[in-house]
Amino acid sequence: MVTSGMEFWSFPPAYDRTYMPSPKSNYWLPMRETMDPGERDREIVVRLQKVMAYAYKNSTFYRNRWDDAGIHPEHIHSLEDFERVPVITKQELRAAQERTEPFGDYLCVPDSEVHHIHGTSGTTGRPTVFAIGREDWGTIAENQARILWAMGLRPGDMVFVAAIFGLYLGSWGAMLATERLGGKCFPFGAGAPGMTARAVQWLRTMKPQGFYSTPSYALHLAEVARDEGIDPGDFRLKIMFFSGEPGASIPGIRERIESAFGAKVFDCGTMAEMTPYMSASGTNGSGPGMVLFQDMVYHEVCDPKSFSRVGWGERGTPVYTHLERTSQPMIRLSSGDLTHWIEGPSSCGRTYPIFPDGVYGRIDDMFQVRGENIYPSEIDAALNQVAGYGGEHRIIISREGAMDELLVQFEVSEDIYSEGAEAVSGVNQRASETLRRVLGVRAKTEVVNANIIPRTDHKARRVIDDRELFRTLNSKLE
Amino acid sequence: MVTSGMEFWSFPPAYDRTYMPSPKSNYWLPMRETMDPGERDREIVVRLQKVMAYAYKNSTFYRNRWDDAGIHPEHIHSLEDFERVPVITKQELRAAQERTEPFGDYLCVPDSEVHHIHGTSGTTGRPTVFAIGREDWGTIAENQARILWAMGLRPGDMVFVAAIFGLYLGSWGAMLATERLGGKCFPFGAGAPGMTARAVQWLRTMKPQGFYSTPSYALHLAEVARDEGIDPGDFRLKIMFFSGEPGASIPGIRERIESAFGAKVFDCGTMAEMTPYMSASGTNGSGPGMVLFQDMVYHEVCDPKSFSRVGWGERGTPVYTHLERTSQPMIRLSSGDLTHWIEGPSSCGRTYPIFPDGVYGRIDDMFQVRGENIYPSEIDAALNQVAGYGGEHRIIISREGAMDELLVQFEVSEDIYSEGAEAVSGVNQRASETLRRVLGVRAKTEVVNANIIPRTDHKARRVIDDRELFRTLNSKLE
Repeated sequence: MVTSGMEFWSFPPAYDRTYMPSPKSNYWLPMRETMDPGERDREIVVRLQKVMAYAYKNSTFYRNRWDDAGIHPEHIHSLEDFERVPVITKQELRAAQERTEPFGDYLCVPDSEVHHIHGTSGTTGRPTVFAIGREDWGTIAENQARILWAMGLRPGDMVFVAAIFGLYLGSWGAMLATERLGGKCFPFGAGAPGMTARAVQWLRTMKPQGFYSTPSYALHLAEVARDEGIDPGDFRLKIMFFSGEPGASIPGIRERIESAFGAKVFDCGTMAEMTPYMSASGTNGSGPGMVLFQDMVYHEVCDPKSFSRVGWGERGTPVYTHLERTSQPMIRLSSGDLTHWIEGPSSCGRTYPIFPDGVYGRIDDMFQVRGENIYPSEIDAALNQVAGYGGEHRIIISREGAMDELLVQFEVSEDIYSEGAEAVSGVNQRASETLRRVLGVRAKTEVVNANIIPRTDHKARRVIDDRELFRTLNSKLE
Repeated sequence: MVTSGMEFWSFPPAYDRTYMPSPKSNYWLPMRETMDPGERDREIVVRLQKVMAYAYKNSTFYRNRWDDAGIHPEHIHSLEDFERVPVITKQELRAAQERTEPFGDYLCVPDSEVHHIHGTSGTTGRPTVFAIGREDWGTIAENQARILWAMGLRPGDMVFVAAIFGLYLGSWGAMLATERLGGKCFPFGAGAPGMTARAVQWLRTMKPQGFYSTPSYALHLAEVARDEGIDPGDFRLKIMFFSGEPGASIPGIRERIESAFGAKVFDCGTMAEMTPYMSASGTNGSGPGMVLFQDMVYHEVCDPKSFSRVGWGERGTPVYTHLERTSQPMIRLSSGDLTHWIEGPSSCGRTYPIFPDGVYGRIDDMFQVRGENIYPSEIDAALNQVAGYGGEHRIIISREGAMDELLVQFEVSEDIYSEGAEAVSGVNQRASETLRRVLGVRAKTEVVNANIIPRTDHKARRVIDDRELFRTLNSKLE
């Protein structure tokens, strides 16, 4: 039952876990999703105050930080006031967990309220632990079911989750969303040897309506299916949603997935720390990019130095604030990612702001070549515009003498390989010209043999910076 | 709140999902667990009637079957009457799913009530799909939380689940149990490259109280930890519970796990189809083996031909019946497993029957060598009694001329390898004698080099039957 015009919008959250929208509604929470943006902003300020007051009371981490900065929750009367709240970084969260093991002094609930433990993979350095409270687990389900509804999934639909269930939160969020929506969750998983071939068989047998994975995994899955003589279109997927990588908003990648599977493709996701990570998500009718459900997580796009918001249309780094989490609420978490935003409403009718191209890079992934700022995602996007591109590439940055060299190796499509040297060289020429135009800097391009570039089950890593090696060697010699 | 002497015992189940026993209670549901067994049996008959009436009404599969056999739910007035109900097999379930895709005509709820989809891995032949209903998912959590409580886990305890999350139901059951118990679930997963080494690091950092995996994975994990210079005892695990393989009730294996980790070891689990699979489980105070929570799943040990129950103390095959599931209730599912049972109460005070040695083999795993019935689990148990055994072995059955030959290859402990040939030969001699005594048949034994026998992340497969090859070749030549 909807108890007020605000549809359960309170802090701490108090959702009705049995609520289900009218089957005809395009919106899970029609009022919150389509309200006047100015009015919403005023309501957001109220929640920001409450979340901050809660965190100030329950966490040494935030209290110390804000005391040091001379900020107090009571000072926050506008979104502009909120911009003065210092951002926090992943490194600081990790350090807090080293000081106060295992969950860090930003845990705002008693230890006994911790329901699920997830984390970063910790392949480099100390991993970060996510302690998700019992109530939060339910709130995450509420939030993410709302997003799946916005994509067009409905009760009874089957969602196939083809991502590893473990530390990684992407798969769990997709599962909780499906469960809460009244769908059938098929938590298939990924990562173990032989699973992709079996996924192909199950998809063919079960014909789910929905599908979740990383974009690169979906492309890999399509390849594996074709290798087995199966057209991925035969799965008859309707809705495919992706997080963990930017791909699903990148032109070219997006189209390749759409055409391989014949399904609608939705980009979603911010950061694992920010789960419900789907607060930014594509919606049915909105096209590429992601709509920002500001009443769930408050998204700001900020100047990476001052951390005040940039204007509509401008580039910056997303800064996220939980409005509905109580266990480890993130308040102004700096993502280090890169995007630009525009004002709503989106064509789906939601009055939220939009990341029209998704989140397309990382500030720290950015590299400089001969003084130009280059983002790997730009190279990805550029190659995907080149007819005959085979879908896999790698970027090698090296230094010859004093000059940086950018080399992009890539595969071409099967047709091109079989047409022979001239066709291959034509694609190479086009790739080189496209890259030069997009990047503003000359890149060497090179077509490599088919299947030389390693495929990935999870997030693709494509940049090899030989200069790093060069620098390391040099510093060791010094 | 406990509403009657029967503590929520009804069909369909109607649990209070907020119920929590008194912190001092040894039992989650004290009355149901410690009631007079004769009285319990009378109550079980009432539930068997109800489950059968429900399945008769809602499933073509059961209705046709029982009509053919001249059985009607109203005929069931005693446990003896119930023995006349025809058993069902996995093969029949699979065939039903081929006829009525995808869930089979034994699905007793509307398609829209299906909440989770799991299945067999389907490495050979058509996989079986498990469609678990929304209500059942909650009932499974209720049932399995009861078991974790019986092992000694309590609210706030952290349980590390080191088994793959996907089709396999073991990990999901452990997760649901932990969640419902009010514990912290750490669903780590397993199966992807490098995960075991990372599990070692996380266990050392997080120090969970509880741990779930397959027995062979726990031994593998201990090895990996030691290879990294870490004593698995440093994890300070208190309670380790296992399913998926018989190991945790096998003397030797059980002791190896206990001594490696310094934890209490509990065997549990029947079959994935029977989830809540922990209905048979070790309990705190009951020692090895498994207590049969008959009010959750009704366990019979039957003669494998007549499928009537065998007497206490006798060997037979378990036949299982769900008393609390509504989506795909299994009614007299024949396991093909092998065990023997004894009368309760167990030393934990529960008045249930007991599998004192767990479930230790499969009727179809049994092989004959020179006319003797041999179960791989017996060989496993025998080797584990031999001082100097290194923990891994394989069984090779071949035929030389007309005679079956049984060869058991095994590794010895590091100490023995480093002591040299004489020590190795001594262990070999002892293994040979022990096997002859236990099996009643001569086996060749052979010590192989360390780490030659492949380790497994999941269920160990140890039997190689060369006669199969011999037969196949022969039949091809004919």
